Amino acid sequence: MPIQFDVDPTVAQLAASTSAFVREVVIPAERACGGSVHDAPEALREILQRGAREAGVFAPHVPTRWGGHGLDLRGQAVVFEAAGYSLLGPLALNCAAPDEGNMHLLEKAATEDQKEHYLRPLAAGEVRSCFAMTEPAPGAGADPRSLRTTATRIPGGWRIDGRKWFISGAQGAGFAIVMARTSGNPGDPGGATMFLVDAGTPGMSIARDIETLDEGLFAGHSEIVFEECVVGDDQVLGAVGHGFAGAQVRLGPARMTHCMRWLGAARRAQDVALERAGSRMAFGSVLGDLGMVQQMLADSEIDIEASRALILRTAWELDTGSAAAQLTSVSKTFVAEAVNRVVDRAVQICGALGISAADAPLARLLREVRPFRIYDGPSETHRFAIARRAVRPYRQPSSGAAGS
Amino acid sequence: MPIQFDVDPTVAQLAASTSAFVREVVIPAERACGGSVHDAPEALREILQRGAREAGVFAPHVPTRWGGHGLDLRGQAVVFEAAGYSLLGPLALNCAAPDEGNMHLLEKAATEDQKEHYLRPLAAGEVRSCFAMTEPAPGAGADPRSLRTTATRIPGGWRIDGRKWFISGAQGAGFAIVMARTSGNPGDPGGATMFLVDAGTPGMSIARDIETLDEGLFAGHSEIVFEECVVGDDQVLGAVGHGFAGAQVRLGPARMTHCMRWLGAARRAQDVALERAGSRMAFGSVLGDLGMVQQMLADSEIDIEASRALILRTAWELDTGSAAAQLTSVSKTFVAEAVNRVVDRAVQICGALGISAADAPLARLLREVRPFRIYDGPSETHRFAIARRAVRPYRQPSSGAAGS
Amino acid sequence: MPIQFDVDPTVAQLAASTSAFVREVVIPAERACGGSVHDAPEALREILQRGAREAGVFAPHVPTRWGGHGLDLRGQAVVFEAAGYSLLGPLALNCAAPDEGNMHLLEKAATEDQKEHYLRPLAAGEVRSCFAMTEPAPGAGADPRSLRTTATRIPGGWRIDGRKWFISGAQGAGFAIVMARTSGNPGDPGGATMFLVDAGTPGMSIARDIETLDEGLFAGHSEIVFEECVVGDDQVLGAVGHGFAGAQVRLGPARMTHCMRWLGAARRAQDVALERAGSRMAFGSVLGDLGMVQQMLADSEIDIEASRALILRTAWELDTGSAAAQLTSVSKTFVAEAVNRVVDRAVQICGALGISAADAPLARLLREVRPFRIYDGPSETHRFAIARRAVRPYRQPSSGAAGS
Amino acid sequence: MPIQFDVDPTVAQLAASTSAFVREVVIPAERACGGSVHDAPEALREILQRGAREAGVFAPHVPTRWGGHGLDLRGQAVVFEAAGYSLLGPLALNCAAPDEGNMHLLEKAATEDQKEHYLRPLAAGEVRSCFAMTEPAPGAGADPRSLRTTATRIPGGWRIDGRKWFISGAQGAGFAIVMARTSGNPGDPGGATMFLVDAGTPGMSIARDIETLDEGLFAGHSEIVFEECVVGDDQVLGAVGHGFAGAQVRLGPARMTHCMRWLGAARRAQDVALERAGSRMAFGSVLGDLGMVQQMLADSEIDIEASRALILRTAWELDTGSAAAQLTSVSKTFVAEAVNRVVDRAVQICGALGISAADAPLARLLREVRPFRIYDGPSETHRFAIARRAVRPYRQPSSGAAGS
Repeated sequence: MPIQFDVDPTVAQLAASTSAFVREVVIPAERACGGSVHDAPEALREILQRGAREAGVFAPHVPTRWGGHGLDLRGQAVVFEAAGYSLLGPLALNCAAPDEGNMHLLEKAATEDQKEHYLRPLAAGEVRSCFAMTEPAPGAGADPRSLRTTATRIPGGWRIDGRKWFISGAQGAGFAIVMARTSGNPGDPGGATMFLVDAGTPGMSIARDIETLDEGLFAGHSEIVFEECVVGDDQVLGAVGHGFAGAQVRLGPARMTHCMRWLGAARRAQDVALERAGSRMAFGSVLGDLGMVQQMLADSEIDIEASRALILRTAWELDTGSAAAQLTSVSKTFVAEAVNRVVDRAVQICGALGISAADAPLARLLREVRPFRIYDGPSETHRFAIARRAVRPYRQPSSGAAGS
Repeated sequence: MPIQFDVDPTVAQLAASTSAFVREVVIPAERACGGSVHDAPEALREILQRGAREAGVFAPHVPTRWGGHGLDLRGQAVVFEAAGYSLLGPLALNCAAPDEGNMHLLEKAATEDQKEHYLRPLAAGEVRSCFAMTEPAPGAGADPRSLRTTATRIPGGWRIDGRKWFISGAQGAGFAIVMARTSGNPGDPGGATMFLVDAGTPGMSIARDIETLDEGLFAGHSEIVFEECVVGDDQVLGAVGHGFAGAQVRLGPARMTHCMRWLGAARRAQDVALERAGSRMAFGSVLGDLGMVQQMLADSEIDIEASRALILRTAWELDTGSAAAQLTSVSKTFVAEAVNRVVDRAVQICGALGISAADAPLARLLREVRPFRIYDGPSETHRFAIARRAVRPYRQPSSGAAGS
Repeated sequence: MPIQFDVDPTVAQLAASTSAFVREVVIPAERACGGSVHDAPEALREILQRGAREAGVFAPHVPTRWGGHGLDLRGQAVVFEAAGYSLLGPLALNCAAPDEGNMHLLEKAATEDQKEHYLRPLAAGEVRSCFAMTEPAPGAGADPRSLRTTATRIPGGWRIDGRKWFISGAQGAGFAIVMARTSGNPGDPGGATMFLVDAGTPGMSIARDIETLDEGLFAGHSEIVFEECVVGDDQVLGAVGHGFAGAQVRLGPARMTHCMRWLGAARRAQDVALERAGSRMAFGSVLGDLGMVQQMLADSEIDIEASRALILRTAWELDTGSAAAQLTSVSKTFVAEAVNRVVDRAVQICGALGISAADAPLARLLREVRPFRIYDGPSETHRFAIARRAVRPYRQPSSGAAGS
Repeated sequence: MPIQFDVDPTVAQLAASTSAFVREVVIPAERACGGSVHDAPEALREILQRGAREAGVFAPHVPTRWGGHGLDLRGQAVVFEAAGYSLLGPLALNCAAPDEGNMHLLEKAATEDQKEHYLRPLAAGEVRSCFAMTEPAPGAGADPRSLRTTATRIPGGWRIDGRKWFISGAQGAGFAIVMARTSGNPGDPGGATMFLVDAGTPGMSIARDIETLDEGLFAGHSEIVFEECVVGDDQVLGAVGHGFAGAQVRLGPARMTHCMRWLGAARRAQDVALERAGSRMAFGSVLGDLGMVQQMLADSEIDIEASRALILRTAWELDTGSAAAQLTSVSKTFVAEAVNRVVDRAVQICGALGISAADAPLARLLREVRPFRIYDGPSETHRFAIARRAVRPYRQPSSGAAGS
């Protein structure tokens, strides 16, 4: 069986249905929330998800056991790109961050009871969730080992204390997956554990909503405070002390599904630019016949094709059971930057229209894609990891401990 | 007298006073409007301008005859950068776009009566103004010759009809300088005339405020409709049919003063990044000791120094009476792109803080600087003009009419 | 059969053998010609090809009927990258330009007699060949329609007159494939025909060898003059008047095989840089622990992975029978530029060693890869084609004839 | 005296004479050595220097006391750019590296006797010199503190032992300025001393000429071995133990004069590209009317103007007596990279002609400018220094010793 890129007919059909659903149902709904998913009302989420169910495109990534289409990552690559064509698309299909990544993590790490209690309603869109890992400085940020939130052993459970921020989707979430330190000190490589904390648990409260450049995630980003928040032993997710490994189970695929969705957004921006280039006259010809515009359009086509090829390559490696750490970092870094370039060029080609917030989706997209070069590990952290792995085989024994 | 870069002591003193005023008065006021100048109340403008007068830094560019400091463009380069350190700074000093450029244009092109009536109160901050040139497609945009708004000769005056958009500061302005076609057809190189139209003139109305990515100009951008708007002969600004030449009188220096102000914003972003780099720990060292962060910081220092050197070089050429068309295009293109790179790097260095809208000014600045690559002539239009001028001496006679 | 990237075991085995052969036999031979393939003696070519035959890696792309391994383009992608690790590798395997592309063209376009006469010895390495298309200005360059060399009908054959330059491998070639105009005038889109012209045919002579930046092709580049050069009807390759289409048959895959070989060269440069980064101390740590070096190394890993993914994607599309014009342009443009970036970074990381011509292969590689951004269609021509195809569906009927 | 850019009439006249001399005498002589200064015969050097004397343009930077024009660095900026228009120009004017920097160093650091003995004949072009600092790994490279060559105290003088490489102009030089460690160990910040070593001194020998990518310096680069090379106390240049400070005296201005000369080379490349763009037809129009070509041409004009402005700014600061360490690093980094971009674009615009080694100077220039991103401190070292200085005021006391 040689290398091949043909898409499985079932997947191709689901992608086509998704594209049609996004074009006919989701995009027309964008105006309802001014394009800002953050400000979308709960009712809109319900309407869109109902529409997705009716169109047969709901939960493409969810195992069939929990009511989804059970696509592997290669299949998700094709369908998520189609969904990402509108910022509201992933919400409609229930494959938006952070829920989608949490479903994956629960499927891999949760007990059967936990799956029944947390995964089933999440997969069905009945509740939402959040993943509480990032902390304000000097806590866990690009370097997760700085983790400062603690979970202290108490009889029959744990007491969580600390502060998290930039927790997407926290507002209104049914439960949070919380990373806390159960041993060691900030800076130590291990000692972290994940907990499932239900909304309403005493001691967990939202301190504020953080206003950010991006507004593309439902319910936005919040700062959460844990003060003597007590959970039971059955709320530990995965093994005690293995939280960072659990986060990696989530993050590898989650980085790629982010890439898939954002690639759809980039395609949208490029299509807006192409439409403009095919119709707007300037300097005696149509924009799309001007060389500098052609250069921008071509560079964006190149960026999109390279992104797609890298995503598929990495998805395949993840599907075959590999950790694919190097390829995931390579793809995340390239795609995050490529997507930003594509949207930026589309804005430039569309001129005044490109920076108008109401007349085209570009100004919105420009704001949404920028943080992706920071979220899920900033490009610099990934480049550090890529280089370190590449250098390792060439490192001379005498060059010391830095080669860890 | 050899080439030299020493700043005149009077200018240096004014710049120092401006920096102190911005730091002590203007920046603390940013919170009052959430950093968005667009949404700043009129009262804030008045308070800040009063403060600037008291600090002796009001109207640095205005001829002394009209109550200002009478700086030439080299002097403005130094002081406007200091003012631009806060988005509210130029508003406070009454040297913000579009008023500052309009003052320059009136000084150069208006009759004495027009100066008394329009320039004097504008220079004093008693009224604001706008410059109505850009039109929705297929009208005048990057290519001004596409001008479609018409001014038709009537006894004793002119009747203006047409539509303008992205007119900064129109909402609440005391008068508009309006470019209209008095002869020829869209696409013709000449035939334009400028008119001074008072607010409240029948037939001129604001159709809508345009929501844009940027919110850094007081009163934002509007769409204006002209329907049988009648003005008298004494409201013609400059000579009939010479409107495009008049616009150039305004645009050359206006492009440079934009660059000066935005360079101040870039310096602000870099300083925020440096502060972060000097204090935030990650991976066992302070951020500023990590090579990739150093690379970003160094590239921004380089961008800032190169921008400043180009601005001074161009300001000198304009001050000596040259049109400086080539250098103005070179500087505007370089500075607009450099400023965007500097702010983008600062966001990246600051991570979550960089994309937070409330905790640092960077997310705001990222939105504000992006349109500068489009406003005042997109980079592509300037590059086209730069190349055409550079190729001209080498163009062979046989290579035809395209060499115009 | 889902998307997958597993390499066929036969191909993987051939690639491993090729890597071993290159490492053990070819690289040690580089010193013999100072790294310059151009100056390699004929004897070296024979020795290396004999070695390749003995190692079982000769002619991987040649159909088994003619003695090769019969790999499709996906297989070639894997093996050619391994061969390209040394500039002499493709010569050793008889898969270097221009012979490799000519074999492909002959297989597709030649008659059985022509195949026996020209393809069989070419595939066996008994003769070499050249492809004579490019002409000095104002003839056929980036724009093939400028073709000026003519082939005039005479009884029983054709008389060729004109001048070609940058014809790789012409010196010592057994035959040339010559593109000449059999109808129309320079600038016309069609009217070209390909001819097989044996070395020694009266009227075909080499005017000079062109000294170029690159020296990576055996026998270099020559300027050829055709003066009343007469060939028979049986020397027409393909159909009269369909020469440009024939060139496309050659060029699509030839562009990709170029990419494959150059990717190997980029990998070599990166490995040299990694070796240096892992051992050289500077500023108190090993080079590979410095952030700016890590950034360069990571960017090169990203460039290499993205190049490889695009090559495989395009090879698959070509293997399935598609013309793949868009993807070929996308991949050629990206890979040519990526390869240049990778080599440039390796030079920078290695410092003085990087620009030394004798102590490392990098200075040589820097010279070799630069022309690839021009050969086989400059990046600008490909970007023009990519954009034109992308805009086409959005072009409005009224926007005129430029949409061809 | 405000900021101003007018060139002093004397300087302007000298620059005009230099341009005329380069155009009429030097460029025609390029063919004599195939464009490679490295391979230029001694006789050519003498002929060109005689011509420069006759044209009144010899030694523009040399103090009048020693027979030169006594220009300050701002004046040199204008004249050296004119000289650098041909790679042979600086050689003709006796202002090429390394002699020009050595003259500056001797003027600043030598005793009167040393000046008579070494500076006078050097300024007159009667002898050449070299500056022997760089060592093979693990010695002094980007990090000078790695210095390993030692000078050991002996009665009445010093014994030098060690190995230097990439020593430009060593072959045939009348004397060498040698940096050696007189105290401390490799890695220590101080302890270096400079020595004046005459050619022919026993124990100093040239081990080999190093073949490099660039061939633009007369006599090329050599590897030199010191074995028990004895010099007298009167051959110490400057103070014992202050060698690194002495090197900085040389390097600051030397970096800028490099920039000036290379800017001339960039201007040459751009002019070749403009000439091509104005005459070569492609796709139905002259090259210079194609948007992508215009973009490259415009970007090169921008790079040239920004380079020139930074050079003048830095030259002024150095002329006023400042060390200008930050601006020197900023300018060197920017100009070195800008010059490479300009030449690379010119190659791309000229296509086959751009990579031809005989038909245009571009392939030669591409090789020559690349090492400038490494010589005189690689861009990475300068960026490190720029960032460190920028961060310093923001470094918190607690962030430790790294802030040195």
